[in-house]
Amino acid sequence: MPREITAYSNPLIKRVRDLRDKRHRREARQFLAEGLRILTEARETGRLPAMLFYAAPSRLHPLVQALVRDVEAAGGEAIETTADILSKLSGKDNPQAVVGVFDEFETSLADLDRSRAGIWLVAERLRDPGNLGTILRTGDAVGAGGLILVGECVDPFSVEAVRASMGALFTVPVVRSDWQPFLHWLRGGPGQLVGLSLDTDIDYRSATYAAPTFLLTGNEAQGMPEGYAAACDLLVKIPMLGKADSLNAAVATAVMAYEVLAQQRG
Amino acid sequence: MPREITAYSNPLIKRVRDLRDKRHRREARQFLAEGLRILTEARETGRLPAMLFYAAPSRLHPLVQALVRDVEAAGGEAIETTADILSKLSGKDNPQAVVGVFDEFETSLADLDRSRAGIWLVAERLRDPGNLGTILRTGDAVGAGGLILVGECVDPFSVEAVRASMGALFTVPVVRSDWQPFLHWLRGGPGQLVGLSLDTDIDYRSATYAAPTFLLTGNEAQGMPEGYAAACDLLVKIPMLGKADSLNAAVATAVMAYEVLAQQRG
Repeated sequence: MPREITAYSNPLIKRVRDLRDKRHRREARQFLAEGLRILTEARETGRLPAMLFYAAPSRLHPLVQALVRDVEAAGGEAIETTADILSKLSGKDNPQAVVGVFDEFETSLADLDRSRAGIWLVAERLRDPGNLGTILRTGDAVGAGGLILVGECVDPFSVEAVRASMGALFTVPVVRSDWQPFLHWLRGGPGQLVGLSLDTDIDYRSATYAAPTFLLTGNEAQGMPEGYAAACDLLVKIPMLGKADSLNAAVATAVMAYEVLAQQRG
Repeated sequence: MPREITAYSNPLIKRVRDLRDKRHRREARQFLAEGLRILTEARETGRLPAMLFYAAPSRLHPLVQALVRDVEAAGGEAIETTADILSKLSGKDNPQAVVGVFDEFETSLADLDRSRAGIWLVAERLRDPGNLGTILRTGDAVGAGGLILVGECVDPFSVEAVRASMGALFTVPVVRSDWQPFLHWLRGGPGQLVGLSLDTDIDYRSATYAAPTFLLTGNEAQGMPEGYAAACDLLVKIPMLGKADSLNAAVATAVMAYEVLAQQRG
């Protein structure tokens, strides 16, 4: 049976709200995901929250009922609360119908099976959580094997990244690695490392990609270090006709990934 | 000569800070743009802020000096202030080097010359300011003639949209219109209206685009109304292999726009 919390002052509410903060997430090794769509996506991939919060009026929604049932069956806790408290948990005026507290999960390089997919995404020092989530969502759409985050990237479990991923955080494996271990792992098997660069004459549409293709996108402001570009098997550029000579990192990744997908599908 | 403001309580500071709010922007018909890169981009396209704020330590930066000179020559005002106040104006802990207050500018459908570009972007009920800015940035990169916002879209002059556009707000004309006036204008000349849809079997890579191509992207959550889809000359879909069956709206627009660009460049 779900328990009820109707007081802001309940210490659990503060503890959950604190998960919006990176330091608290790291300590608790838990994170927040919001919204019925994202939690249902998670449930369908077998990920259930340790705690599920929903507002009393949502009690009769069949997807909420399915979540409550599965969370409780898995030993988690379902908690009925008020719209005000849900709104406080989500930090949004427009409260989502449900908020889940998930245990963090992590994939390591050794866990990845590179024969499983033709496209893999690699992002280096990615700083914007919206970009990270959007890249995960693109990864889901192109059937990428995973997203490998190299160097100091934004936390994939931040509220903004989870939200922008629209559930793809639960469907696309995410690995955090430093550059050298990544390169060592990559060179231990087949794989074409393709870097997106401004310093090449090779148009991304004229290059040939060989599966498994690892698409490397550099930092939003600086691109990738020269040494990383030098380690790539291929550098390609996306043509830019405008004045700004720059694309959003998530957009550039998607344009590349869809070109590789089109080639690989024939 | 720049004047100095060093007190938070200065009424001008409050007035400028209020421009973060849509209601105040509408009343003042002015908006904020932040950062040396974006303001320099604006300056290069001939757009100068009515007011330019910079922190005293930036005084010697050559790009800041160029901005101050041009703003004053154009009858605007340059204001030297503290890092704290700049940070208050920008609403960010990490204050940008400069903040500009610009007069709003607007383009109407009648101002557009459709022979000027092969690609035009059309977004319908776009709600996320980051998506709007990112689409403008893509529009700059593909050489789009403009972005036409149809229906109730997010304000292109919001701080988040301007920031995400990385200056493309100043290089890509933006028109706000309702659907009927847009359609009427469109059908008054050549133009292929291409809608991005899930309800079609035509893959975006197998379709043929005819310049000027108008790429229509629907609302982030709902896509476009049926009537809008019916008015399109062509509906295409981007393949999605994942579980979520959805791409970020700015990503989908970019994947489409780059396919059209590749075809048009041969």
